[in-house]
Amino acid sequence: MLVFAALTSSSIQVVPLAGLPEIMPGDDLAHLLVEAVQRQRIALQSGDVFVVAQKIVSKAEGRIVRLDSIQPSERAERWAAEHQKDARVIELVLREASSIVRMERGVIIAKTRHGFVCANSGVDVSNVSNGTASLLPENADRSAAKLQRELTREFGVRLAVIICDTFGRPWREGLVNVALGIAGMKPLVDYRGQHDAHGKELHATVIALADELAAASGLVMGKLDRIPVAIIQGAAIPEGAGSGTELIRPAEKDLFP
Amino acid sequence: MLVFAALTSSSIQVVPLAGLPEIMPGDDLAHLLVEAVQRQRIALQSGDVFVVAQKIVSKAEGRIVRLDSIQPSERAERWAAEHQKDARVIELVLREASSIVRMERGVIIAKTRHGFVCANSGVDVSNVSNGTASLLPENADRSAAKLQRELTREFGVRLAVIICDTFGRPWREGLVNVALGIAGMKPLVDYRGQHDAHGKELHATVIALADELAAASGLVMGKLDRIPVAIIQGAAIPEGAGSGTELIRPAEKDLFP
Repeated sequence: MLVFAALTSSSIQVVPLAGLPEIMPGDDLAHLLVEAVQRQRIALQSGDVFVVAQKIVSKAEGRIVRLDSIQPSERAERWAAEHQKDARVIELVLREASSIVRMERGVIIAKTRHGFVCANSGVDVSNVSNGTASLLPENADRSAAKLQRELTREFGVRLAVIICDTFGRPWREGLVNVALGIAGMKPLVDYRGQHDAHGKELHATVIALADELAAASGLVMGKLDRIPVAIIQGAAIPEGAGSGTELIRPAEKDLFP
Repeated sequence: MLVFAALTSSSIQVVPLAGLPEIMPGDDLAHLLVEAVQRQRIALQSGDVFVVAQKIVSKAEGRIVRLDSIQPSERAERWAAEHQKDARVIELVLREASSIVRMERGVIIAKTRHGFVCANSGVDVSNVSNGTASLLPENADRSAAKLQRELTREFGVRLAVIICDTFGRPWREGLVNVALGIAGMKPLVDYRGQHDAHGKELHATVIALADELAAASGLVMGKLDRIPVAIIQGAAIPEGAGSGTELIRPAEKDLFP
């Protein structure tokens, strides 16, 4: 047992949180998370991170739209007809966008009102009831802060919360989980000005810790088996306040408008 | 103990591999990894993944260039002077590029000869001796396959190997680890055609599992404290052959040339 403890002291554990019910609008998500943690008898420790899929946050917050309530614009109708899409979903995509980054070959890459650049403005019809679509939370940082406050109060230890979604990216195939909303931690770890093992000053090394945590959570969040929450234990989370918007590169610094 | 085992049965463990020496050209990297695993008494199991930082692979393979051996071109000299860079490093960046994606505001985003799109063609002067720069491995899939073969033979269980590097990305701040070379696993998990909990067919969901594993490894790979290898245990790695090039989106499918 001693050897085991020594071995794993600096290891990181990614724990799937199982047994959550189907989340419905108005549900008290923090309360459901607390119950699931207790059922699973997870011993939370200071610095643990809850990574929560955007989808269940959106559901709890009622960010689910009935498609038959949507009247598509002419632009949405035209695009949908050209690319065999549902015009009502396209209409939602356009409404959620603050600007269109690319709209070609049946793919819409948009900047959302929050500033995230992603496919379909984060509008999604998977893992929601037929005839509905989910939108991103109004303000994922606010959603994260609310969960973090309630979880911290319940468990009495320092916890961080990340709201994540799966995004594609240019040049690489496949989706990875990234952080949208954050509370209880700084999202970036800045090594600039520090020195490597050769005594050389690091100039360009800022690590997106919150995105690494989000991606790690993807390892236990099945797309099919309804594990929308992971708890990451043992990561050295730097204390301090932070927000998901810190991960958004300002447009004037970006080379790919 | 029973409760603990039950809790962690589906958890994923990210274990830092400590105690590796400074890697030198010609070193037998597989042998050094085996020794480190044995010293740390890690009980490897079928499906475990070694995630290895590109830097130590490049060092072992001698992909380290003395800068005083490089004669910069006029183009490199001009760019370096404009942006206060080392012209010899810029010359290496240009030589390693198959094409330049962006070259502005002091930043070079290039497609490497392997097809990766990243800053500075993967040329890096951090964590190498002063007066030298490291290049990406000639063929990271080949490097991964060699390590995977030797580690599998030594430990007698099914293992996967990922060679990773930290890349930036458009629209988001900070770097994350991504997979360059892969052996012993498929890099992408394709959910298309499968059905979500609502019975709805998934259309766009291909998860970049190898990049999630690479990003998770970043949680224990300090930039300063010389942990260039993580072992990820408990991830459900789909069996089969795969390569890092599967993660490269073909240029004709990409919207951001």
